[in-house]
Amino acid sequence: MRQVAIIGIGQTKVDEHWERSLRDLAGEAVLAALADANRERVDGLYVGNMLSGILDHQNNLGALVADWVGLRGDVDAVKVEAACASGAAAFRSGIIAVASGELDSVLVVGVEKMTDQRPHDVASALATAADSDYESDQGVSFVALNALIMRRYMHEYGWQHADFAPFSINAHANAVHNPWARLQNAITREDYLRAYMVSDPINLMDASPIGDGAAAAVLVPVDGLTGRDGTVLVAGSASATDTLSVHSRRDPLWLSAAYHSAKRAYDQAAVGPEDIDVFELHDAFSIMSALSLEACGFAERGQGPRLALDGEIGITGRLPICTRGGLKARGHPVGATGMYQVVEVVQQLRSECGQTQVDGARIGMAQNIGGSGGTILTHILKKA
Amino acid sequence: MRQVAIIGIGQTKVDEHWERSLRDLAGEAVLAALADANRERVDGLYVGNMLSGILDHQNNLGALVADWVGLRGDVDAVKVEAACASGAAAFRSGIIAVASGELDSVLVVGVEKMTDQRPHDVASALATAADSDYESDQGVSFVALNALIMRRYMHEYGWQHADFAPFSINAHANAVHNPWARLQNAITREDYLRAYMVSDPINLMDASPIGDGAAAAVLVPVDGLTGRDGTVLVAGSASATDTLSVHSRRDPLWLSAAYHSAKRAYDQAAVGPEDIDVFELHDAFSIMSALSLEACGFAERGQGPRLALDGEIGITGRLPICTRGGLKARGHPVGATGMYQVVEVVQQLRSECGQTQVDGARIGMAQNIGGSGGTILTHILKKA
Repeated sequence: MRQVAIIGIGQTKVDEHWERSLRDLAGEAVLAALADANRERVDGLYVGNMLSGILDHQNNLGALVADWVGLRGDVDAVKVEAACASGAAAFRSGIIAVASGELDSVLVVGVEKMTDQRPHDVASALATAADSDYESDQGVSFVALNALIMRRYMHEYGWQHADFAPFSINAHANAVHNPWARLQNAITREDYLRAYMVSDPINLMDASPIGDGAAAAVLVPVDGLTGRDGTVLVAGSASATDTLSVHSRRDPLWLSAAYHSAKRAYDQAAVGPEDIDVFELHDAFSIMSALSLEACGFAERGQGPRLALDGEIGITGRLPICTRGGLKARGHPVGATGMYQVVEVVQQLRSECGQTQVDGARIGMAQNIGGSGGTILTHILKKA
Repeated sequence: MRQVAIIGIGQTKVDEHWERSLRDLAGEAVLAALADANRERVDGLYVGNMLSGILDHQNNLGALVADWVGLRGDVDAVKVEAACASGAAAFRSGIIAVASGELDSVLVVGVEKMTDQRPHDVASALATAADSDYESDQGVSFVALNALIMRRYMHEYGWQHADFAPFSINAHANAVHNPWARLQNAITREDYLRAYMVSDPINLMDASPIGDGAAAAVLVPVDGLTGRDGTVLVAGSASATDTLSVHSRRDPLWLSAAYHSAKRAYDQAAVGPEDIDVFELHDAFSIMSALSLEACGFAERGQGPRLALDGEIGITGRLPICTRGGLKARGHPVGATGMYQVVEVVQQLRSECGQTQVDGARIGMAQNIGGSGGTILTHILKKA
């Protein structure tokens, strides 16, 4: 297989883009990535998206976006879906296509447009990430599933709600310096503590906001790239699954698919947790930050919050996470999120993050979670 | 890249399976394919599906099906979507994953469950294959789009409605002998002519029925397979796109993406139209049969119906098509259809088709169309 490089990235601001269409958002990110890569065409287009069929009444996004950005014809174009991990799943499909030799250049774009809807329609659409027959159709919303996990975690390991505050505070602090973030405001511990309850114990500051947006990257084989600045290599790419329903898991507090995909990505990249300079994790809810840190070997079981409380997750800490705001403050346009994470890791490795630049970052990791942990993809990127 | 072989196939009957769930249907086809391949596990699962998010309130089918069939854990599992071409798009993703060396064995399953719904909900869901902003939201249903194309075709080339009858008669005649087909009844020219109008000039006999069903195949590298009967090789695999909306095309009567994908598949397989022994084409509507035959080089422009009128498309004809009933009579469970086509071509190459067996079939082709031609994939399979 050929080694794969990322030579261009692009993104839109995550926001309420009511005046813009799905194709327009995808197009902006795609054209920015092509310009950044200094290319006009690619052989393939992989679109990560979860909800366009339900919320935008539009399927067949491969053809739609290919046509809109001027790529139609002899181009491979499909949509890849794995709930909230759709972005990373599309990224991995693109990597495999280039690695295989089947395609010589690929664009991956994650796109989602979800804010110009009635809130209950969005909640209902998001519930399709859970097990329809055994979870969502029984009335459990997606936030409620995460609330059950968080409550159990607090009970098992003796944490208080306030112990999760540093995750949200860190995310917001970093988003202040990210012009593409939806919530560019800092929050205090007070803000966290007094935020209104969404689904006990998850309050508004534990939950990431949805959003409209698109993020894209251009992938090519490393061979043939010479003397090019800012090239980033794909050092590890892995996907794993778990039961879709939380109640079917042996241990609902262990992200088995995060463990498996991270382990394989580490092996491929020949690195371990101690080598990761920056980690864009899937903080859809603050409890997921803790579980992700534990499954990936950054903290002992039940000790994820300790890392945050000890100040280790900040830009100058041992393991900077959510350096551009994470899902919590950059925003969570679900099918696009995985590609925002990739773009952000690339920005760190290219030293383009200004005040939230992690000094000397050479190896970055992105982890994207679909459902409550049913599908998890881990990618490790390296500075060339 | 490694050459890829199909070593196992499985399918459910296309029917109204109201008593069975989406995962149950997918599981039946997957387990049948694994049994046929004499394997217990695979490294990857690619699910082709178009409408589960809308109609079944379920996304994340990769994790769902992987868990249900006992494959969860270290398995790559995603859903691939390209409207009605989702099945072939998933198949192509699986091929690339095996060809690349990334995965050593892959299951591809197309699945759709769509009959236990209100008909207008299904019509609305199917319209997501068209351009939402410029076609479906203007009130044009998917069958209406095809009716516009058929009317224009009849006008341009001087055909009468009755001239399309042989396509439907052939499909139904073949489905009589296919136990997995939804409509196992023969029809006469009279039946065709007096069928009620759906969207002028498309009547009920021009239109394929929807259905619930799943079809699957197991893919592995050819290397290492020795002395095994019934192995089928993937000789060509290509995907191409066109504008999503019909009105944007230079010529609405030319399936440009069929032409491009077929041309590349022919080149890869080092064959031409004259070498194809059996062709499973995408007869969602009879007009699509004509356009597909023309774009793939089997008929001159505007002369698709001639092939059918001359009796060339029957089992003993020059180019047998829809040998197991096609979309028209086997049924069209949209996201599964592309995999039914693959399974049926494999059955022909393995000489398992009984009364509709094409004598000495060695090379078969399957073509799957997404939308009104926005995404088209062509696959060529060869007897090992």
